[in-house]
Amino acid sequence: MTPGMVGADLANLVNEAALLAVRKNKQKVSMAEFEEAIERVMAGLEKKNRLINPKEREIVAYHELGHAVVALSLPEADPVQKISIIPRGIAALGYTLQVPTEDRFLMNKTELLTRIAALLGGRAAEEIIFDDISTGAHNDLSRATDIALSMVKEYGMSGKVGQVYFARKKTAQFLDIVGQGAAEYSEATAELIDNEVREIISTQYARAMDILSGKKQFLEKAAHVLLEKEKIDGKELKAMMDENS
Amino acid sequence: MTPGMVGADLANLVNEAALLAVRKNKQKVSMAEFEEAIERVMAGLEKKNRLINPKEREIVAYHELGHAVVALSLPEADPVQKISIIPRGIAALGYTLQVPTEDRFLMNKTELLTRIAALLGGRAAEEIIFDDISTGAHNDLSRATDIALSMVKEYGMSGKVGQVYFARKKTAQFLDIVGQGAAEYSEATAELIDNEVREIISTQYARAMDILSGKKQFLEKAAHVLLEKEKIDGKELKAMMDENS
Amino acid sequence: MTPGMVGADLANLVNEAALLAVRKNKQKVSMAEFEEAIERVMAGLEKKNRLINPKEREIVAYHELGHAVVALSLPEADPVQKISIIPRGIAALGYTLQVPTEDRFLMNKTELLTRIAALLGGRAAEEIIFDDISTGAHNDLSRATDIALSMVKEYGMSGKVGQVYFARKKTAQFLDIVGQGAAEYSEATAELIDNEVREIISTQYARAMDILSGKKQFLEKAAHVLLEKEKIDGKELKAMMDENS
Amino acid sequence: MTPGMVGADLANLVNEAALLAVRKNKQKVSMAEFEEAIERVMAGLEKKNRLINPKEREIVAYHELGHAVVALSLPEADPVQKISIIPRGIAALGYTLQVPTEDRFLMNKTELLTRIAALLGGRAAEEIIFDDISTGAHNDLSRATDIALSMVKEYGMSGKVGQVYFARKKTAQFLDIVGQGAAEYSEATAELIDNEVREIISTQYARAMDILSGKKQFLEKAAHVLLEKEKIDGKELKAMMDENS
Amino acid sequence: MTPGMVGADLANLVNEAALLAVRKNKQKVSMAEFEEAIERVMAGLEKKNRLINPKEREIVAYHELGHAVVALSLPEADPVQKISIIPRGIAALGYTLQVPTEDRFLMNKTELLTRIAALLGGRAAEEIIFDDISTGAHNDLSRATDIALSMVKEYGMSGKVGQVYFARKKTAQFLDIVGQGAAEYSEATAELIDNEVREIISTQYARAMDILSGKKQFLEKAAHVLLEKEKIDGKELKAMMDENS
Amino acid sequence: MTPGMVGADLANLVNEAALLAVRKNKQKVSMAEFEEAIERVMAGLEKKNRLINPKEREIVAYHELGHAVVALSLPEADPVQKISIIPRGIAALGYTLQVPTEDRFLMNKTELLTRIAALLGGRAAEEIIFDDISTGAHNDLSRATDIALSMVKEYGMSGKVGQVYFARKKTAQFLDIVGQGAAEYSEATAELIDNEVREIISTQYARAMDILSGKKQFLEKAAHVLLEKEKIDGKELKAMMDENS
Repeated sequence: MTPGMVGADLANLVNEAALLAVRKNKQKVSMAEFEEAIERVMAGLEKKNRLINPKEREIVAYHELGHAVVALSLPEADPVQKISIIPRGIAALGYTLQVPTEDRFLMNKTELLTRIAALLGGRAAEEIIFDDISTGAHNDLSRATDIALSMVKEYGMSGKVGQVYFARKKTAQFLDIVGQGAAEYSEATAELIDNEVREIISTQYARAMDILSGKKQFLEKAAHVLLEKEKIDGKELKAMMDENS
Repeated sequence: MTPGMVGADLANLVNEAALLAVRKNKQKVSMAEFEEAIERVMAGLEKKNRLINPKEREIVAYHELGHAVVALSLPEADPVQKISIIPRGIAALGYTLQVPTEDRFLMNKTELLTRIAALLGGRAAEEIIFDDISTGAHNDLSRATDIALSMVKEYGMSGKVGQVYFARKKTAQFLDIVGQGAAEYSEATAELIDNEVREIISTQYARAMDILSGKKQFLEKAAHVLLEKEKIDGKELKAMMDENS
Repeated sequence: MTPGMVGADLANLVNEAALLAVRKNKQKVSMAEFEEAIERVMAGLEKKNRLINPKEREIVAYHELGHAVVALSLPEADPVQKISIIPRGIAALGYTLQVPTEDRFLMNKTELLTRIAALLGGRAAEEIIFDDISTGAHNDLSRATDIALSMVKEYGMSGKVGQVYFARKKTAQFLDIVGQGAAEYSEATAELIDNEVREIISTQYARAMDILSGKKQFLEKAAHVLLEKEKIDGKELKAMMDENS
Repeated sequence: MTPGMVGADLANLVNEAALLAVRKNKQKVSMAEFEEAIERVMAGLEKKNRLINPKEREIVAYHELGHAVVALSLPEADPVQKISIIPRGIAALGYTLQVPTEDRFLMNKTELLTRIAALLGGRAAEEIIFDDISTGAHNDLSRATDIALSMVKEYGMSGKVGQVYFARKKTAQFLDIVGQGAAEYSEATAELIDNEVREIISTQYARAMDILSGKKQFLEKAAHVLLEKEKIDGKELKAMMDENS
Repeated sequence: MTPGMVGADLANLVNEAALLAVRKNKQKVSMAEFEEAIERVMAGLEKKNRLINPKEREIVAYHELGHAVVALSLPEADPVQKISIIPRGIAALGYTLQVPTEDRFLMNKTELLTRIAALLGGRAAEEIIFDDISTGAHNDLSRATDIALSMVKEYGMSGKVGQVYFARKKTAQFLDIVGQGAAEYSEATAELIDNEVREIISTQYARAMDILSGKKQFLEKAAHVLLEKEKIDGKELKAMMDENS
Repeated sequence: MTPGMVGADLANLVNEAALLAVRKNKQKVSMAEFEEAIERVMAGLEKKNRLINPKEREIVAYHELGHAVVALSLPEADPVQKISIIPRGIAALGYTLQVPTEDRFLMNKTELLTRIAALLGGRAAEEIIFDDISTGAHNDLSRATDIALSMVKEYGMSGKVGQVYFARKKTAQFLDIVGQGAAEYSEATAELIDNEVREIISTQYARAMDILSGKKQFLEKAAHVLLEKEKIDGKELKAMMDENS
């Protein structure tokens, strides 16, 4: 559960788990404390007394289920550890914990597209269930756009833009950045990049919509459970999904 | 009446109310002082001796009624607490106090559009009554534009622009901001964004015009009351509206 | 005669008037000193010994009459107090004192358009009388353009641009300004704004031309008086105009 | 001969003339010293020992005659005091001293166009005589462009651009300048401005060519005199011109 | 093996080799230490315990073979010293050591194009073998783009852009850089440059694809060896290639 | 041989020559030392032990002959003093010393075009002899582009751009520079300028190609001599050329 964490992260994690064990008057640090510590480090502290109205809680539940169900439906996606609608950290109303099974150094185009689809799953679920969309997808869209931009500008993964690298290196000399931002490539290329990014994102959004619109009944059932229990384990959700298909 | 206020805001509010009670030689701080304190904090001090000519006072009255009537006509709008044409703070000639009933963490597209419609209600009332428009809508247009821009660039709520996030994060490194402002997306996308913003705003303006043009007689009646009493309570106005429909 | 002046302006004015009375060995400050003081404050010191050749003096006379006659012809215009061709301050060769009758907090679209027409009246008179135009309209064009720009970008008073607010707030963080200046709206919108500004100004210039071209003889007569007396009172000019129509 | 000079300029001039008289062991400062002083102040010190090859001297002679002959041919032009091919100051190989007869506060469109024609006369003479053009017109083109730009952007003297003022004031706040430079008007307007400037300049160049191409023989005659005498007085040149027409 | 290295580089290299010999308890520094030292200096320290999953290792093997096989197939390419899939330095998962045989002061257009083809060989091999592409080509695309940009903007090697030098010198005065970045050449030229760069890169990518698609079986055989041995010498690979053709 | 050198340059030159004489144990500074000093000052120190491979030496020889032969073929070109393929200074692999015969203050359009043709002669010779082009023309293209840009933007020597001066003065106030770079002229004008620069350069390149393609045999003969002797005197080369025509 800790790929991508460097030594300092792991030390921090162990320390966090030890503190939790002390607080619970335990003699030993068990797996439960480690799991709790991982969540704290990755999503921030639980804010159980943040008051969220029932309508918003419902939106959050379907939103998180959207992420999880798309991820569970696509074999290339990182596994889903857990979904939760207990508010955590500064801004999150809920979250889906999705961690790769090992350290990764390379990502394939297929994997990047799947990652975008899972990010857009939250918004897609809202549209399917409520026929309205909320500001809650704000951060997902930002992350999906960043991935799509890298695919097009840095990884040469867009046929129309080609194997050209358009994210020019930022040099140390600080004012260079200004010049680069302004004139590094032509307006025509900027437009091509925007269109390719839009194309990638709309295709993956359609993919997420496609996956979820066939599972509307399951979404409602799972939302019922999530609203009651506040957390569902990834494997549990997968089992529920398999049952219902 | 205080959703969105953090601890420090509430402390400030209580202090303000206590001062008002002292000034009135009251032994206890009553609800009246709290309500007055809320208005002071949200709209600034009353400036009763600011001289406004009768023609301008009339424009202000219809303008504020425009906001309130549009808001009262749409179920998704935040409730109207009060409207007033007593000048307050540095620039306001009048104001409509509209506060959500509870803390909000998410906004739906439908709610955001309604918020824009209510903001444009002031200008719409001027056009319907005077067949002329004034500079008084200045601040409303600025706020409506900000909401529409966020919908299009950050919340992926425009079909044509898509689920792409165009308001790129501003990083800490200050000169990055310059580069971003200049070349973050193409001219073609900038034009698309402007057109979508214009479309959203003109649609909501038409909606406000539609609501108000059917209530011209009521507007005149309510303006008469407002010009005399200077303030109308939200519930009172709602009652007047229901009577007249 | 002092709308728009704050307390400090009025204090300054009274002081200025007192000094003038002392210089004239008067026991009391009379209305004459106050009027002179207002002119000093608003247009600078008289520069009677600035040598201007007769041809230029003639241009200045017609130019100022142009402003005044357009303003006197339009009911929404601010009243004309006085016109003068005695050079004042650093750059002015003549001036038309036009002051609103009371403090204003709102301006209607109709009033703003009329203000532009009066500003363009000076240039229009030059074109009608001399069939040539001079650099003297420099400052008038700058002010007329500023008003037209605000109408289009801030007050939502252009049908084609719509109720969108394009003059984005300048935030405190200074480098934000750079970004905003560069990319706040698209080229297409910038072009639309320029065209609307040009349209507003050319329509008002045509309006000024229309008013003045019907009064060519009166302009010649009034110029004759102005060149002789150097100053004409607003009411006097109005009377002359009424006589001649 | 000193219009446009302020008090300090005149003081400087008198001082310069006194020094010249001292150097010549004169008891009194005569008109000759004042004239020499004016030239020193306006065109810099004579550099008699700057070696210029005969071919270049010839180009300079025709170039300066071009300015002078165009100016003498147009009644609205400032009078020509003197032309000289003695190098002066840092860069000038020759110069034409052209000073208005009195202080000017306004310029008509007609006068501005004539000023441009005279500035372009130097280049036009080169083209007519040598069928080749030199880098010597560098400074003339810069000044002619500045006048044309002001006509179009500040003085509203271009029919297509209209009475709009596009040279926005530079405010004190220094970073504002950046924003202004970048986005003050649209590309379409920038193109319109460039085209109008080009049109003004090419029309005036054609006017200069037209004047000079009819005087080719006179130019050759006058150049012969100028190359020999190094200086010609404005009135003398005018007399020679009248003789030859 | 050290062309391009200056004195300090060589001193560093000898020092590095001496340290390696000491660590191995050798009396003398042999050629083996020098070769190891060169690799250390050029590609960073070996990171044998960096855990890379088998799938990624396979991608890296084919990627590096792609570079090497394209280089070995083109006579103008720099000779291949070695390929390795032992992770080195901060980011490299594998590398192909390709060093020119002598110091070079000039590069022909033909040689530059070949260098681009070899850089794109890694990505091409991935596409041929896996029918998917990874983020591993990131750095190759950046370097290929830099070469293509220099060809078009600095070396006048694009027929459509011509012998014009568009990479204007950056002057010492730091704010000049900003201006240059923004307006040094027109949008039309920027678009032309982008298109020529894209054309160069897509042509060389096609060339790499062409070379490698005829050698799919050899690639599989060589990958088998490389995955086992982790390193292959350039000459050895060349011999294997010749055997298989 | 020293036109364009100011006093300090000449002092430096004499000093340099004196040092050379001392190093050679000469009693007097002879013309040989002065010539050597001029070369040192203009092209840097000789770097006889810079190792250049035979292929590159050959390219350099033809490249320098290209410059010299084009210059010797055009009467308006500055005379050729010497060509050399002994590396000098930091980057030069060879050079052609071409100095005007006297101080120049003006340049004709014809002379500027010829200067461009001579600069492009090096590249043209490479294309004719090797049917390939190298990075060696880098600096020549930069200088030719600078001249062409000045012709179009500052000297009014392009018919399509006209007598307009587009290289606006950079003012002292440093942030003005930013604004200027960004918006001083329109995109349409920028495109026109780029096209005119491209046109000038391609025409002169064609002219250089035309001159050299008729002298291919002479180039080969002269290259043979140059590769052997390393230097050829300008007059000697001219004599060889005359013999061969």
